[in-house]
Parts: sequence; structure tokens; C-alpha cells
Amino acid sequence: MSGLAGPYRKVYVLRIGHRPQRDKRVTTHVALVARAFGANGFVLAGSCSDSVERSLRRVLECWGGEMHYECGVPAKAYVRSWRESGGEVIHLTMYGVPVERVIDEIRASPRPKLVVVGAEKVEWFFYENADYNVAVTSEPHSEIAALAVFLDRLYRGRELLYNPSRPGKRVVPSARGKRVTGGVEC
Amino acid sequence: MSGLAGPYRKVYVLRIGHRPQRDKRVTTHVALVARAFGANGFVLAGSCSDSVERSLRRVLECWGGEMHYECGVPAKAYVRSWRESGGEVIHLTMYGVPVERVIDEIRASPRPKLVVVGAEKVEWFFYENADYNVAVTSEPHSEIAALAVFLDRLYRGRELLYNPSRPGKRVVPSARGKRVTGGVEC
Repeated sequence: MSGLAGPYRKVYVLRIGHRPQRDKRVTTHVALVARAFGANGFVLAGSCSDSVERSLRRVLECWGGEMHYECGVPAKAYVRSWRESGGEVIHLTMYGVPVERVIDEIRASPRPKLVVVGAEKVEWFFYENADYNVAVTSEPHSEIAALAVFLDRLYRGRELLYNPSRPGKRVVPSARGKRVTGGVEC
Repeated sequence: MSGLAGPYRKVYVLRIGHRPQRDKRVTTHVALVARAFGANGFVLAGSCSDSVERSLRRVLECWGGEMHYECGVPAKAYVRSWRESGGEVIHLTMYGVPVERVIDEIRASPRPKLVVVGAEKVEWFFYENADYNVAVTSEPHSEIAALAVFLDRLYRGRELLYNPSRPGKRVVPSARGKRVTGGVEC
């Protein structure tokens, strides 16, 4: 999945508000969506999670891809430092501006992008310190879905195109079946 | 969110493979994505879940929308009966045909659509009895993300448009803030 980042040096996803036991499966989905939809970094704020890290590393090993991974970072300091080093911060929230209204502007900017994905309660700091507060529908649903649709719009659906030449284990699409080729068997 | 179903009588989401304790949060996300992205039914196969139902009903009550809800149904019988009554079955799986190759055909058909969303292991029956096995990327990630992107493609992004006239509590999009209007305060 490398290469999608395109003109940007980096598209990282910062997961905030992770509650260790309760959120481990949801946070794992966030990490796997980050990879599959073309981000090149996943950063878990606050505590680390063995379970999330194990799942992400297993997928990277089996299915390929390069991805920066970090955990236990202080979220606010990370956001501040991202902006200070010239990057922009996009906070996904149902209260924000509809994605269709801002995605062209975000796509056009060559600045490294930090996509901030919260859990239920998000501190005011993130609304105030985001360059963009972006809504993927203005309805309550799922940060996993919001991240997928945001990245899909950012890359104009390129991540959905099947790439038969990517290295490693990969699916051979089929109308009725499970076909896999290449890479190690995991 | 009513009205999106368009020319189809029904777009229902059937969640299979739900494991009661382990999956309750992921299944709740599936249900909320079904609602927010325009499906008009959510069916939980196997056991019921108080937690999933409570979350879905609370969102429907606070944020509006009409949605058929059922749980505890036998999944295979449900799929068979959907097809026998003239509907079509779309199974989301990373092993299927890329969504971009089949979405126009699926959209063009006026048949009621049952979108089947599995958990980790899906029985062969669902591959064989689906009209379409559809992949949202051919990479492992999240059934929540797959459902959101599939419905987004089905409705050509119409569910992302902000609808200021929908009844009930709703968000007023803003660049920096949380503004809500109408409906009951929940």
C-alpha cells in the first residue's frame, strides 16, 4: 500500500482517547484501516496496547506495506509538534465541516497530514488546534468509518484499485471464492 | 437519513458472526454506520445484544431516522428467504470483486439489497449464496469501514451531503466548535 501518500511526505493517523481494554478491537480496526486506505503512519496516543500492535504487525508482515508505528505518545504535544514542523492537522468529528466542502483544499496542500481520530469524548484542545475539523456525515457513527471515507476521498478512490503487482501475499479477486497468491503463508 | 434508499425498496444490513461479549462495540459501529450511510434496516443474526440495541435505539431517538431492526434471526435462512422473495444479496469480503467493478451494476438493479457483513470467519455458504461478493480494497481491515465505503459508493456520496432540513436533532457544521440544533436534547 505504499506510494499512495502521493505529493505529501506523510499521512499519519493519530488515535486519541484509547481506553486500554474497552477499545482494543476498535483501535485495531482504526490501525488496519489506516494501512489499507493508504496512510503511512499510525500513532496511538496515551498508553500502548500489545493487542493492537500485534494485530497491526501481523498484517504488515503477512500482507506487506511499510508503516511507521508509535504508541504511548502524549497527544497534545504530538499535535503541537506536528504543526510546528510545518504539518497540518485534520480532526475527524461529526461537528466539523462536511468532507466534501474541504477535501479539495486539503488534497491540494502538500503539507504532511496528521488525521486525528477520537473515541467518544474529545477534548476541546483538538477542535481548537486542528487546521480542519472535518465531518464524514454529520451523524453519530464510527471513527473507523469516518477514517476510511476520509482517506478514500483524499486519494480519490485510488486505494480501492486492485494492484496485482504489489509485492507480498495478496488476494486474487474472485466472484465466488478465496484466492490468494504470493508472499508467505500466514 | 430516510429517503436515501432511492429506487430500491430496501437496503438492509445483515450482521453475521457476532460474538456476544467480544463484538458488541464493533457490531454497534456496524449498526450506526448502516443508519448514518443510508441503509433502512439492520438485522443481527444469531443472538441478540442488549448493548447494540440500546445504542442504536438511542441514536434513532436522539438523531432521528426510521430503521427496521431485528435480532436473533438464523442467518442462512434469512439469506435464502431474501433471495426467494426477489432480493439480492451482497456479501462484503476482501476476497471478492473490487467494488468499483460492480457497483454500477448493483446500483442499477432495483432489487432490494441485503448487505452481509461478517466478522473474522465467514462460512462458505455466504460466498456461494451471495449474488455479489464485493471487496472494499483486497486488504484485511474492518467490516465497519467496508460497509461505509460500500454504501457511500452505492449512494454516490449523497449521504455525505449536509441536510439542514431533516427533522430532529442535528449538527450545524462548524469549522471549530460543536453546534447542535432542533429535536430533543439527549
